[in-house]
Amino acid sequence: MPKVIQLKEIRNDFSSNIRKLIDLCKDDIAEISNLIIEKLDSDVPLIKEMARYVVLSGGKRLRSLLTVACAKMAGYGFNKEEKRHICLAVVIEFIHTATLVHDDVVDESKLRRGKKSANEVWGNKPSVLVGDFIFSKAFELIANDRSEEVLKLLSNTSVIIAEGEMLEIANDKDITISEDTYFKVINGKTASLFSAACQAGGITANINKNKQEALKTFGTNFGISYQLIDDALDYYSSSSKLGKNIGDDFKEGKITMPIILAYLRSSNDEKKFWNRTIKNLNQDEGDFSKGINIINKYNCIEDTILRAKHFSNIALDSLGTFDENEYKKNLLDLVRSSLKRTS
Amino acid sequence: MPKVIQLKEIRNDFSSNIRKLIDLCKDDIAEISNLIIEKLDSDVPLIKEMARYVVLSGGKRLRSLLTVACAKMAGYGFNKEEKRHICLAVVIEFIHTATLVHDDVVDESKLRRGKKSANEVWGNKPSVLVGDFIFSKAFELIANDRSEEVLKLLSNTSVIIAEGEMLEIANDKDITISEDTYFKVINGKTASLFSAACQAGGITANINKNKQEALKTFGTNFGISYQLIDDALDYYSSSSKLGKNIGDDFKEGKITMPIILAYLRSSNDEKKFWNRTIKNLNQDEGDFSKGINIINKYNCIEDTILRAKHFSNIALDSLGTFDENEYKKNLLDLVRSSLKRTS
Repeated sequence: MPKVIQLKEIRNDFSSNIRKLIDLCKDDIAEISNLIIEKLDSDVPLIKEMARYVVLSGGKRLRSLLTVACAKMAGYGFNKEEKRHICLAVVIEFIHTATLVHDDVVDESKLRRGKKSANEVWGNKPSVLVGDFIFSKAFELIANDRSEEVLKLLSNTSVIIAEGEMLEIANDKDITISEDTYFKVINGKTASLFSAACQAGGITANINKNKQEALKTFGTNFGISYQLIDDALDYYSSSSKLGKNIGDDFKEGKITMPIILAYLRSSNDEKKFWNRTIKNLNQDEGDFSKGINIINKYNCIEDTILRAKHFSNIALDSLGTFDENEYKKNLLDLVRSSLKRTS
Repeated sequence: MPKVIQLKEIRNDFSSNIRKLIDLCKDDIAEISNLIIEKLDSDVPLIKEMARYVVLSGGKRLRSLLTVACAKMAGYGFNKEEKRHICLAVVIEFIHTATLVHDDVVDESKLRRGKKSANEVWGNKPSVLVGDFIFSKAFELIANDRSEEVLKLLSNTSVIIAEGEMLEIANDKDITISEDTYFKVINGKTASLFSAACQAGGITANINKNKQEALKTFGTNFGISYQLIDDALDYYSSSSKLGKNIGDDFKEGKITMPIILAYLRSSNDEKKFWNRTIKNLNQDEGDFSKGINIINKYNCIEDTILRAKHFSNIALDSLGTFDENEYKKNLLDLVRSSLKRTS
């Protein structure tokens, strides 16, 4: 059936790879959804309503998918009694959602995943508290898992997330930020939880230390690559990202990789442009196009993707220590196709 | 030396009882301070600066004192190798501080413990994140303690705190709130952490289930009593509380026990007054005095203190299961004198 094979090749984009992985883990994902509903129950109706709104808001749940896929790649979760990967996937999803809810308060964002953000619907007060609630629920679930290793991993990851986001704020509008400092920021805000999600999956399978380290490497490097592509997409995506439009980062004066590279490569006059538009956030109508021109003049999108490719390659090689199976194949496809995301 | 005995009797107020307890546990408290400094270290300078500012802001550290005193009352912490109570006292202090920092963001408070609040100095963004950081640090420390019981206790307590605060917000300005709902609110926002602080102390001493239950009862009831006195103080304190002035609750339209009782006992005309001043927050200059008059007419301060006394009595009796020692004596003195606090 050459036609089918061809279709498969055409459909090797990020979204269809996500869908393939979801399909491969569909029973686990159904259990994850049930556990989420169960654990977000509360005697306080407002908590229940808000928690459900933010956790069930239709994200692609990439991080909890990583937990499940890594667990199964490593051989855990095929037996009906094996439920730890479900529990830990929910923990990862809760920690992720809690940070998103707080981020939206902090950034005064009005949209999240194409819907109104919690702070936009209910205001800042309940949003900060529901973030705390979901975060606490994550640690309640970790207590049920009874693994010291998991608790260490996820409490430490939560510290690193807060540090990364604080580092980003501390360097807000500082266009002279070094690439290395920026890598620390994205390690904190994105890669650390990708990594923890993969490691949590591995812990359930009781794999050896080298394989566990491999999952850490896989998650971290995929996470950095994923964030860099996100950065690039804000300057060249043809379609609009869910709940976010091309040029948003520029409008907010957000420092991301394309801008960091562009500034470093700019002439003195061009540096003045960046200082005015990003540092001082003093923007005129044509400035976004002007910015894009400078960014393209110095190949900053291509080079952002080149850096993303570097980290993706490390992620791809890291799984060499695992035996071939369909989960591994799908994880590798996901990383590869992430480089070619268009949204 | 009858003079000394008399002096002791005179000095049986809450502040001197706190000081006595601090003196009794001074070596432990020095270790707590060192561990706090050590654990708030971070590569991100802004995190370190803010975390130190909020944790070392000179509160009386009542909750961590409860952990240490309960541990020692139960026989733990006299040996140099016994350090769990120090670690758990810091955990309690971190969870408390994280909630205070978020509360100040949520309530837009400008003052905390007589100093500028973190949100007033640095703004909301870094304050939400530093709260998350300190909260995550608490769970990192719990991971070091390696006790499933502690993790269960403190993750569950954190859930209850968030639920209690959300319940308070959900009933914001609703002067018809029932006493029972209000007790749920103060159980969440105050008593649950008092209780967890005492229980954490007990866990270190490996006491039996009944004694552990006794500490839970002690902390919960002391906490409710403490909060009710706080409520009352806002309407009759002669001296101003640290960082808070008499009448603040009224001005903010905050529903507390004196108001709940006053409303329930008010005539239709008086109910209109409460609806205007508290529900609609439409207040004129003489309204606070007018409110005080209604509150006094119906003995609402005395009856708030009477309710506080009820919970204090339960707390006092609960410790009957422990042998007499100076820590127990001081804890009992603390609860008794809390009823007569003036600030």
